[in-house]
Amino acid sequence: MSTALTIALDAMGGDRAPGIVIDGVKLVHQRSPNVRFILFGDEKQLRPLIERDPQLAEYTEIRHADQFVTNDMKPSAALRNFRNSSMRLAINAVHDGEAAGIVSAGNTGALMALAKFVLKTLPGIDRPAIATFLPSMRRDVVMLDLGANLECDTNNLVQFAVMGEAFAKTVLGLPEPVVGLLNVGEEELKGHEYLREAAAILREADLPAKFHGFIEGNDILEGKVDVAVTDGFTGNVALKTAEGVSKFYTHILAEAFRSSLFSRLSYLLARSTLRKVRERVDPRRYNGAMMLGLNGIVVKSHGGTDALGFANALGVAIDMVTFEFNDTIIQEFERLEVDNVPLTKAAAPA
Amino acid sequence: MSTALTIALDAMGGDRAPGIVIDGVKLVHQRSPNVRFILFGDEKQLRPLIERDPQLAEYTEIRHADQFVTNDMKPSAALRNFRNSSMRLAINAVHDGEAAGIVSAGNTGALMALAKFVLKTLPGIDRPAIATFLPSMRRDVVMLDLGANLECDTNNLVQFAVMGEAFAKTVLGLPEPVVGLLNVGEEELKGHEYLREAAAILREADLPAKFHGFIEGNDILEGKVDVAVTDGFTGNVALKTAEGVSKFYTHILAEAFRSSLFSRLSYLLARSTLRKVRERVDPRRYNGAMMLGLNGIVVKSHGGTDALGFANALGVAIDMVTFEFNDTIIQEFERLEVDNVPLTKAAAPA
Repeated sequence: MSTALTIALDAMGGDRAPGIVIDGVKLVHQRSPNVRFILFGDEKQLRPLIERDPQLAEYTEIRHADQFVTNDMKPSAALRNFRNSSMRLAINAVHDGEAAGIVSAGNTGALMALAKFVLKTLPGIDRPAIATFLPSMRRDVVMLDLGANLECDTNNLVQFAVMGEAFAKTVLGLPEPVVGLLNVGEEELKGHEYLREAAAILREADLPAKFHGFIEGNDILEGKVDVAVTDGFTGNVALKTAEGVSKFYTHILAEAFRSSLFSRLSYLLARSTLRKVRERVDPRRYNGAMMLGLNGIVVKSHGGTDALGFANALGVAIDMVTFEFNDTIIQEFERLEVDNVPLTKAAAPA
Repeated sequence: MSTALTIALDAMGGDRAPGIVIDGVKLVHQRSPNVRFILFGDEKQLRPLIERDPQLAEYTEIRHADQFVTNDMKPSAALRNFRNSSMRLAINAVHDGEAAGIVSAGNTGALMALAKFVLKTLPGIDRPAIATFLPSMRRDVVMLDLGANLECDTNNLVQFAVMGEAFAKTVLGLPEPVVGLLNVGEEELKGHEYLREAAAILREADLPAKFHGFIEGNDILEGKVDVAVTDGFTGNVALKTAEGVSKFYTHILAEAFRSSLFSRLSYLLARSTLRKVRERVDPRRYNGAMMLGLNGIVVKSHGGTDALGFANALGVAIDMVTFEFNDTIIQEFERLEVDNVPLTKAAAPA
């Protein structure tokens, strides 16, 4: 068991914790039998859940935590007053080298604040970013930042591009991912100045990625690039708008198929086809917001997900560890530094 | 004919001009027989199209223009060198009081620049904004700005909110539209400072609208508000992302219904239901980007639309004139000024 990969879990985070956390762990065990889990949380709640399945005890370990970060808690309060929370102790386990990564379905802002404070950022990274993947007409697309940094400068965007590229290379297995910068037009002269500066740097930098240049909102789901880079404000609005449109389509399809007796009948035949569509956009498949740029793997699961969704978030964390995502970023920045590419704040264009 | 409403048309703008412009005019004539049109463009091309339908001559008039603004032209070039273009002359007709509004399917940036230069902004408005409507789960939603102002301050957003509210009241006929500010969270403390300032002003201002507060991307198509206000960068990305997701759904639905013989058969039955869905989101229904805040009604049609889409853009312009959209804005700002609401740059919060 000594070479096993270990993941720390905030077993108390999420709307249906700790139940879905335990069930998610069981699902992942079937796919990744070599992974061990340390469950941080209320022992009284966790112990009976573990004891129901004797096998579980073989690859999980409980660590009692008597504090829990709630969803409405401010990150600053979580940082100051919840040093023994399940979330904080799970992050500490990564810092102490006991675990290679941490997954939580709890408070996103608190998770980012605690992880930044405890783990610090990787060399070369000024600020961590939140990334996720989305379906597209071609293949899955990585998008970042989704809200960690509401205002970004040139260097932040360049660093996000390098991190996104490393993610696409290691976790998605793309040898030469295509990276695009989200803007309001494809022309070089459009958009904010820091976007044009970031594009100029990415065009020159010797990245192991193809820099596509600027993309527009519609290009994300059309799959024009593998990595879509933007500031946290725009990324958050774009992602949530996409979720809203998706919900809207589900709604109007359901409404249309209920609109007449004939429609209802046709639904019976179309059901299996519509199920395929639903499966393709199943949010559980895309569960897992990766907090990139930290000195340790940190993945946030959606708070309202089920065991399958939580298992997918766990799978992402395991892949990031297995395919050495962080080492890839470090190497990338070391190489770019040798090439004297101005990717850090000090070397920012005036 | 003296009290007839007149609309000026850039008959040369758009991918399929002047054909779809003429056909769009014919469609609108059936719905609005009292509207007259002045067609600005190449007389040699326009004359034969008009002569094909003798009735057309009764409500249209041709004005020759020998210059045309192309799609790849920079706004500054259009402004300087194309003073006799069909677009410019059509805008002049609004300035001179010959027409109450102008519709063009040509170059958006040039149309905004020429319209701003010739017509100027309404009293109280620092910068015009581009608005459109979108479908939602509840009813149509107005969204602005969509790209006229990539960087906005507090006052711009407040003014956009007032214009959006006036649009929803006059054109959509909503007595008390609900206005929301697009942000990354609903809490008052989230997002950029200018957003929080704008929210504070809108909360205090005595608008004939209900100010909902902040909304997130997903709320737009869920229909939480009637007017969604944002800066031009975010609005452009959100709108295009929504278009991309819509295209993605069309794509994966088509793919799923082609995936097996059974799916193909089920499609035959589901076809009429799916057509209903398609009609509900038909981009031609939502054609027409309104340039709000100008001293005259200016509507931009999508360049790639057909006669029906162009007719819908014309319909929007006619509605804006008929329901006195601009007068409503002027009254709104006069009233707010009396109330001493700081909506202008000079009175901006420090």
